[in-house]
Amino acid sequence: MPTVRVSVTLKPSLLDSAGRTVAGSLKHLGYEEVSDARIGKLITLQVETVDEARIREMCQKLLANPVIEDFSFEVVG
Amino acid sequence: MPTVRVSVTLKPSLLDSAGRTVAGSLKHLGYEEVSDARIGKLITLQVETVDEARIREMCQKLLANPVIEDFSFEVVG
Repeated sequence: MPTVRVSVTLKPSLLDSAGRTVAGSLKHLGYEEVSDARIGKLITLQVETVDEARIREMCQKLLANPVIEDFSFEVVG
Repeated sequence: MPTVRVSVTLKPSLLDSAGRTVAGSLKHLGYEEVSDARIGKLITLQVETVDEARIREMCQKLLANPVIEDFSFEVVG
C-alpha cells in the first residue's frame, strides 16, 4: 500500500515560539551551533490509491491551515 | 547556513490516537482511500556547522523521546 509523507510547516514570516524555545534549550545544553529551530508536522498516510489532486485537497481541507501553514507531500513506496 | 531536517515519529508499535482521529476525519470527508494516518514532528534546525554525532545527541537528549519515538535527520543545503 502506498505511503504519502505530508510535511506541514508554519509560514516563514510567522514567529514559531515553540521552535524558538527549542533553539534556546539546545543552546543552553551547549549546542551553540544552533541558530534557529522551527517545528512542523510530519503526517504519514497509508492510502489504497494515490491521486495527487485528492491528497492536495486533504492538505488544504484538513491536514494544514493554508492561512498560516505551507505544506508539501511526497509519495514513498 | 546548513539546514538539518529532523523527523520524529512515534514508534510503529504504539497507538497514535491523534493520527487515528485524522484518518477517521479524512474518511468522513469522503477520502475513503486513506486507511491510516500517523502524526510526527518535523523539526528544521539552522546550524552554523554540521556535526552528525552532535545532531544525533540533540535528538536523543531533547528533540525526541527515544523510549517512544524514532528519529532520523538529513542535512539539506
